[in-house]
Amino acid sequence: MYSTMQDVPLLISRILTHGSTVHGQAQVTTWTGGEPHRRSFAEIGRRAAQLAHALRDELSVSDEDRVGTLMWNNAEHMEAYLAIPSMGAVLHTLNLRLPAEQLVWIINHAEDRVVLVNGSLLPLLAPLLPQLENLRHLVVVGPGDRSVLDGARARVHDYEELIADRPETYDWPELDERDAAALCYTSGTTGDPKGVLYSHRSLYLHSLQVNTAEAFALSTRDITLPVVPMFHVNAWGLPHAAFMAGASLLMPDRFLQPAPLAEMIETVRPTIGAAVPTIWQGLLAELDAHKRDVACLRTVVIGGSACPPALMRGFEDRHGIRVVHAWGMTETSPLGCVSHPPAGVSGEEEWAYRATQGRFPASVEARLIGPDGAQLPHDGTAAGELEVRGPWIAGAYYGGAQGEPLRPDDKFSPDGWLRTGDVGTLSPDGYLTLTDRAKDVIKSGGEWISSVELENHLMAHPDVTEAAVVAVPDDKWGERPLATVVLNQGATIGYEDLKAFLGERIARWQLPERWAVIPAVPKTSVGKFDKKVLRRQYADGELDVTLLA
Amino acid sequence: MYSTMQDVPLLISRILTHGSTVHGQAQVTTWTGGEPHRRSFAEIGRRAAQLAHALRDELSVSDEDRVGTLMWNNAEHMEAYLAIPSMGAVLHTLNLRLPAEQLVWIINHAEDRVVLVNGSLLPLLAPLLPQLENLRHLVVVGPGDRSVLDGARARVHDYEELIADRPETYDWPELDERDAAALCYTSGTTGDPKGVLYSHRSLYLHSLQVNTAEAFALSTRDITLPVVPMFHVNAWGLPHAAFMAGASLLMPDRFLQPAPLAEMIETVRPTIGAAVPTIWQGLLAELDAHKRDVACLRTVVIGGSACPPALMRGFEDRHGIRVVHAWGMTETSPLGCVSHPPAGVSGEEEWAYRATQGRFPASVEARLIGPDGAQLPHDGTAAGELEVRGPWIAGAYYGGAQGEPLRPDDKFSPDGWLRTGDVGTLSPDGYLTLTDRAKDVIKSGGEWISSVELENHLMAHPDVTEAAVVAVPDDKWGERPLATVVLNQGATIGYEDLKAFLGERIARWQLPERWAVIPAVPKTSVGKFDKKVLRRQYADGELDVTLLA
Repeated sequence: MYSTMQDVPLLISRILTHGSTVHGQAQVTTWTGGEPHRRSFAEIGRRAAQLAHALRDELSVSDEDRVGTLMWNNAEHMEAYLAIPSMGAVLHTLNLRLPAEQLVWIINHAEDRVVLVNGSLLPLLAPLLPQLENLRHLVVVGPGDRSVLDGARARVHDYEELIADRPETYDWPELDERDAAALCYTSGTTGDPKGVLYSHRSLYLHSLQVNTAEAFALSTRDITLPVVPMFHVNAWGLPHAAFMAGASLLMPDRFLQPAPLAEMIETVRPTIGAAVPTIWQGLLAELDAHKRDVACLRTVVIGGSACPPALMRGFEDRHGIRVVHAWGMTETSPLGCVSHPPAGVSGEEEWAYRATQGRFPASVEARLIGPDGAQLPHDGTAAGELEVRGPWIAGAYYGGAQGEPLRPDDKFSPDGWLRTGDVGTLSPDGYLTLTDRAKDVIKSGGEWISSVELENHLMAHPDVTEAAVVAVPDDKWGERPLATVVLNQGATIGYEDLKAFLGERIARWQLPERWAVIPAVPKTSVGKFDKKVLRRQYADGELDVTLLA
Repeated sequence: MYSTMQDVPLLISRILTHGSTVHGQAQVTTWTGGEPHRRSFAEIGRRAAQLAHALRDELSVSDEDRVGTLMWNNAEHMEAYLAIPSMGAVLHTLNLRLPAEQLVWIINHAEDRVVLVNGSLLPLLAPLLPQLENLRHLVVVGPGDRSVLDGARARVHDYEELIADRPETYDWPELDERDAAALCYTSGTTGDPKGVLYSHRSLYLHSLQVNTAEAFALSTRDITLPVVPMFHVNAWGLPHAAFMAGASLLMPDRFLQPAPLAEMIETVRPTIGAAVPTIWQGLLAELDAHKRDVACLRTVVIGGSACPPALMRGFEDRHGIRVVHAWGMTETSPLGCVSHPPAGVSGEEEWAYRATQGRFPASVEARLIGPDGAQLPHDGTAAGELEVRGPWIAGAYYGGAQGEPLRPDDKFSPDGWLRTGDVGTLSPDGYLTLTDRAKDVIKSGGEWISSVELENHLMAHPDVTEAAVVAVPDDKWGERPLATVVLNQGATIGYEDLKAFLGERIARWQLPERWAVIPAVPKTSVGKFDKKVLRRQYADGELDVTLLA
């Protein structure tokens, strides 16, 4: 039966219009290394309108065109965040940390005709220009040596000159809320990068969720510090959510080192910050070393990878800052789980809850799929691959302008759920605990063995420096674990003793039969264990493996 | 351009499933006058499934059927709130305070085949039964004298017997999020009652909004006390929002008097409550008279009509409870505005903000339309009729099963905005201050004069007991104000003096020419000024009117 409610689409232009009028006095403060630069939401709104006019009238950007941004977190990036989707184009945030060849591949795949780039990033972009097939316009934002662009085929514009003197309002089109609004590629370790095309609907709903009390509860009383880059899953949704709620923003630009972070916190007094563990680890060391007034911070959100408990306790015990653990991925917008403990728990029980990945909100359904493809109970014990479903969860990847959306089997289930590639448990009250990546799990006789769990136990042994466990083929069980260990200098412990040590901690059937001492665990460029190399070394017979009964 | 996000509808069944699993330990506590009755969200979820099975299999309720509820706020009403929309039927909440003939009209217009009724309300419903054309099944919830139903044509069921032994899970259908989920009629003072058909989408989005920090920020740390009835705009959205967030609920059932309210607050310790001013006025008097421990309450939400400042200050100064003013109506779901002050204000400035109706969220657009139909600036001065637009704002009324949706011109603008019938101002930072009802405003020569403003000034005069100002026809100006005043016993002040008193407070052109002393202002059944009667008395020459130059 019909309802009698108005059919009003959920659009980024609503966030823009609301934030820049009702919350026009809120501010985006950009750290510059010197005097912080402040711009009101009202001014952001006027400049977003000017940017949209410039893109449409001067650079011929029309509906559905992808507009790239190679930018730090700053006020101009915020303007692009609002203007580009609102005018009907697609904001394509470019990850400035990617290897050059991946950046080229991504810009070409997205067919970016226009790229906004911070002047400070020109040295990074300039060498790639000859390979960017579709690029027609380069808009340079802020100071930087533009001589590196000499000879570029693309027309070069100065951001401020481009938007100057254009109308300060724009008649934002009434789009379909399911239209694409933003594009972000995963930096997948295998295969080509894959693009997630967020819709106005997904970004809008995600913003509402970020502002709920069970997530980050942004309000006009907040100043939000997204240290997480705006090219990294939309800075976890914080810029749009903050603009919606009238929460001011502190943008760190390129100043991501511990000392300037501490200084900007002391100066601008943000109430909530969000970053990956390494950033907070650095800040914690800085705060421990130099006394700073950071009492303004009510919450520090940690995500992107598992958060060491010592980091959480360090912030809380020594600096009175509450750390909240969160989990998500590019394909999940990214929230995802937030690890607020349930009401009424305290002490070690509370810490145990807070060390989990947290709980999903109502809008994200979660299920665990076991090795045989069956759904597992949410009993806190059964471990399976996490699959999720919801209005801000990806159901496919961008297939290019001419292509169909991509739905690889290893990423999406036949009934459309996202396969996260993460393995873990869900408790009866919905807390997610991740134990492994699906590709690193050992599939042994219809059961899964967590490589990470074995590694953690082995690395707890006083004689062991590092340990990496990988799956190797086994005639009887399909796969079995191979334990590779790096011993401390001078240690002489034998495999039998290590196995006995493990045997006290895990089930008997999970104990590895194959063991090898290695000089060091191979690492990827970002310092993670490179298990591909170990598996290849084993297959090629390069490891000195001992087989225990 | 397509987005690659999953197309997952926003449905009440998601709130039901999420709340009853992830937040299965949260509780709905129903006040009984004796031992409070507690039921976990998990149990509510199982019983909602049983109710859906019973309605479908036993009472043949199918898609789109309206199922009426004539119930207090209690756990069983919560079950109906979740089960009926989730199965695809429409929850039709019935206002037990309406005059009998309106209740009959509404039940017949909605074609309710099934009504759930609290046993304690049978004496109210029984006399109406012969006139309820479509009613086939009456489901009695809780104790009550069922002998009053003897001879009823409808089949009578006991709720507990009806749902007992049915499956505790239900395969909730994947509905269209724009399908109707709930129906609530306005108790319009003129014409027939009008039904607003909320959709799954509108209720879901509204629940998200209720849980944001800028609204009521419900979370697992809360126990929510909706004193506002569940038949009054879905108890302002609190039941669905609380279930979504895992916030426990305290349901007062029929115990709405000050003493039991104070007792249930002291016993169950809610953190947030919501009610109309008269309820809180009663509670405040109770708290002033008898010491109670109500420190559990972080917030008291007041809505439904303007909140006297003394009430807000009384709760805050004498009991440490923060009062938040909110505004909405049946057609707006109801949020609406919430009067949190902006960041950084304090003292009298803060109180001035908090006395306004508050700010709209991003999802609700607001505009002011002046006497000539033009849009007015949001400058805090220009007063016009408030019109609103958004995904949880009504765009029409229910036209009955065979009829088209109703869009009366006085309720909806040609471009589809809701005409609220309220007149007021919007400040540059979005705060709404209502001054009058549009029907009570005096349209004088293309400008509006607020009757309420004149009344407030007149009633501030020491010789005046009451004053009512109404519009009367005027050849030159269209309309002019007629001031009717009730003088204190023994007062002898003349019209000229009253006019001079007014003249010091309002603009000259707003001063009434027509004056009449009356013995008392006519009142409606709920105690509001009945200006219809005064206008008729003037037209019929029944008032002794003096004309001043």
